[in-house]
Amino acid sequence: MTEQEGLTVKKSENFPEFYTQLIQKADLADYSKVKGCMVIKPNAYHIWEQIQDYFNSRLKKLEVKNAYFPLFIPESFFQKEAEHAQGFSPEVAWIANTEEGERLAIRPTSETVMYDSYSKWIRSHNDLPFKMNQWCNIIRWESLATKPFIRTREFLWQEGHCVYETEKETDKETLTYLEEYQKLCQDLLALPTLTGKKSDKEKFAGAKYTLSIESIMPDGKALQMGTSHNLGQGFARSFNISYLDRKEKKQIPWQNSWGISTRLIGALAMLHSDDKGLILPPKVAFSQLVIVPILFKDTQAKVLKKCKDLEKKLKKHNPILDDRNYSPGWKFNEWELKGVPIRLEIGPKDLEKSQVVLVRRDNNNKTPVKFSNLTKEIDKTLEDIQISLFKKAEIEMKEKIHKTNAFEDFRHIIKGKKVALAPWCGTIKCEEKIKDKTIGAKSLNIPFNQPPKIGKCFHCSKKAKHLTYFGKSY
Amino acid sequence: MTEQEGLTVKKSENFPEFYTQLIQKADLADYSKVKGCMVIKPNAYHIWEQIQDYFNSRLKKLEVKNAYFPLFIPESFFQKEAEHAQGFSPEVAWIANTEEGERLAIRPTSETVMYDSYSKWIRSHNDLPFKMNQWCNIIRWESLATKPFIRTREFLWQEGHCVYETEKETDKETLTYLEEYQKLCQDLLALPTLTGKKSDKEKFAGAKYTLSIESIMPDGKALQMGTSHNLGQGFARSFNISYLDRKEKKQIPWQNSWGISTRLIGALAMLHSDDKGLILPPKVAFSQLVIVPILFKDTQAKVLKKCKDLEKKLKKHNPILDDRNYSPGWKFNEWELKGVPIRLEIGPKDLEKSQVVLVRRDNNNKTPVKFSNLTKEIDKTLEDIQISLFKKAEIEMKEKIHKTNAFEDFRHIIKGKKVALAPWCGTIKCEEKIKDKTIGAKSLNIPFNQPPKIGKCFHCSKKAKHLTYFGKSY
Repeated sequence: MTEQEGLTVKKSENFPEFYTQLIQKADLADYSKVKGCMVIKPNAYHIWEQIQDYFNSRLKKLEVKNAYFPLFIPESFFQKEAEHAQGFSPEVAWIANTEEGERLAIRPTSETVMYDSYSKWIRSHNDLPFKMNQWCNIIRWESLATKPFIRTREFLWQEGHCVYETEKETDKETLTYLEEYQKLCQDLLALPTLTGKKSDKEKFAGAKYTLSIESIMPDGKALQMGTSHNLGQGFARSFNISYLDRKEKKQIPWQNSWGISTRLIGALAMLHSDDKGLILPPKVAFSQLVIVPILFKDTQAKVLKKCKDLEKKLKKHNPILDDRNYSPGWKFNEWELKGVPIRLEIGPKDLEKSQVVLVRRDNNNKTPVKFSNLTKEIDKTLEDIQISLFKKAEIEMKEKIHKTNAFEDFRHIIKGKKVALAPWCGTIKCEEKIKDKTIGAKSLNIPFNQPPKIGKCFHCSKKAKHLTYFGKSY
Repeated sequence: MTEQEGLTVKKSENFPEFYTQLIQKADLADYSKVKGCMVIKPNAYHIWEQIQDYFNSRLKKLEVKNAYFPLFIPESFFQKEAEHAQGFSPEVAWIANTEEGERLAIRPTSETVMYDSYSKWIRSHNDLPFKMNQWCNIIRWESLATKPFIRTREFLWQEGHCVYETEKETDKETLTYLEEYQKLCQDLLALPTLTGKKSDKEKFAGAKYTLSIESIMPDGKALQMGTSHNLGQGFARSFNISYLDRKEKKQIPWQNSWGISTRLIGALAMLHSDDKGLILPPKVAFSQLVIVPILFKDTQAKVLKKCKDLEKKLKKHNPILDDRNYSPGWKFNEWELKGVPIRLEIGPKDLEKSQVVLVRRDNNNKTPVKFSNLTKEIDKTLEDIQISLFKKAEIEMKEKIHKTNAFEDFRHIIKGKKVALAPWCGTIKCEEKIKDKTIGAKSLNIPFNQPPKIGKCFHCSKKAKHLTYFGKSY
């Protein structure tokens, strides 16, 4: 990088262009010559690795085991679950090489290929609960416009697939995984989410019901960030999964599946950024701090020596010592663009005072900190940045939610690029009409906590079933 | 698992059938309905995760960054490097969906798609060395018979791709990564390897030269377990990768690429197993020990309580407490089949003596160990098993290598399912003739340390260039 290229557009002025520039200039991803596919660059891949580490430790606690299933799925597997096949068919990529005359799909999700194996492995109630997960790449041949991390033809994800004896256990665990996602988003990525149940229209193809976490992006569009599906017994029936219960009687088990993807990195970039660039939550930052020496000819050696000492001392933060031959201002811009949470500036005057100037990326606060206090102050500041990012994002999300129970008002909310929370009947027909009339608004999810009385549907005026979030979405 | 299925064939009697049974019965992999693709089950995937953890920490030291590139490669990328295209064409899978008329391949290796990006990213000598790695799935549409882990149409691997200023630096680092592989095999997987350079005939398509690690399996066939290629400047020229040197002059850089795959799990299973099943090296075992209580009605509660205490105390070893309703012998068989390194047996008499009986999977030694000594003894035993497995495999490998300088003798060595070390001229023509006359023997690699005088080629009698390993191989 020899010439510097900051963002040339403000976040508030042209958000799509801002995001496109941010992703590339903050070194998160690059376009590839294959339409709709991207290169995930190291700074973003590092975020994904932190997500994997965090979630793998949770999976171990929950006794879910990691495995790996084939990329290819025989066409006949798809056809076994009719709703599932119909839901995914439009976006499946097929390979040209065939296998004994049968077409092979590239996995758009792995229910079918996994459950074919499950039918061989699960025999007895002793085998249940059966809990497996895989981290892999997924292909969906999108016809819509693609957007790095948010909608691409290839993405990375994890998909958990469990089998249980009872409906009750399945319900409970389907919620458990959703709650894990909500916690991961909050604790690791500093992302606030709305948890709830998808409408019948928006649920996963083949599921009994789908739970989701959603968040609201700066442009007012909602983003679905993770789902957990209670699959009922449909897949088990289609794939001949059964077990012998304690009385040696054959039973059909219950299943769930749940996933999060590299889309989370897109959400992070959209929410944690400003006109200067990205703001990385410390827990997923490739480097938590950059040290920028302020160099003058006669004091250069001394200042650099101190910087190198600090670099060693602060090793656990993966520090970057930027001693390149550029001006301090140029370096400030670069690391602000890339989102490094803390900058330490050290010049000869700081050295005299035994201090550095600590600059926070999230709020630009500059504080002189004595060398003797530095490690403690850095730990405290990183913790505070992590929490502040979440709080700020949560306030912004809540400000975008408007309650209403009248359709005219609803229209204004949607037009004004906000999310509505409204009493709703829940029917597919009603949702289709709402979508038509608002050019694309749909239900996001239905919060778990509902008031005792709901009233009438804001759109069709029939009896409302639940308050529901509605908005346009990615 | 209700009925027990041990191995029904001896390792020494029918090795291919032994391996097929071992892989499935030790719960490492299962066949899938897609020909040539397998399911990697949790016990094997755990080994892969340990390989990833170990190698990622090495990559961090070597300043290699992880990233992720697209699964799909436009046909035109392939054609840019002629030798590379020719080498991989027969085994490429193509997808049926096309992109602006162009066919898309599923990556059989990622040189081409990565270097297209590199050509945009690398501008100056400041950008070099440029070191990147990805962990991903790879597709090679094999026409040969497949074998779990050893040759499958889909496998998992890592591929490192670096760019350097000079040939010397490239040579040095190409060797560094090979040495890393050798160390990983030795330290983590207890696998001995032969390190050396591939012949011109066997080098990677498009490389200047290829270094490899090879090992010799129990049936005398060699297995290539990792490669590191010096790619020269050919790919850089084909993909327009260039940089400005310190004098602002445009230069073509040098490159290398290097990879290891899930094939290593197959090597481990072949080498670390006996007629009872798998023997997992402790460092990659999903569980380092199993606790089997010997239960009698009147002492059951006491014994089980002690077992649970031990399970807690030994947590860092991921212990399994097998309190299922099966006989001790049944349980012994199962955990021996799956390769758990240590078994602890505890019955009422042991309890009286404040001891457990510690049984080593690798040599069946049984030793009573006092509770007070247990944690120390387990640590020591695990360390010893890890080292013993390597030593035993190393001795067996060396016994399979026979020196010769006469072709008739060479024939006998190959026929006797051994590996030959012989002086050789190194030409492609000579290697082709050797292969024909021996129904498939080929050069494995050329050791780095060579005697001062080599003599004549064992086959064509021309001047030999180097002692070379030859054998049949997977």
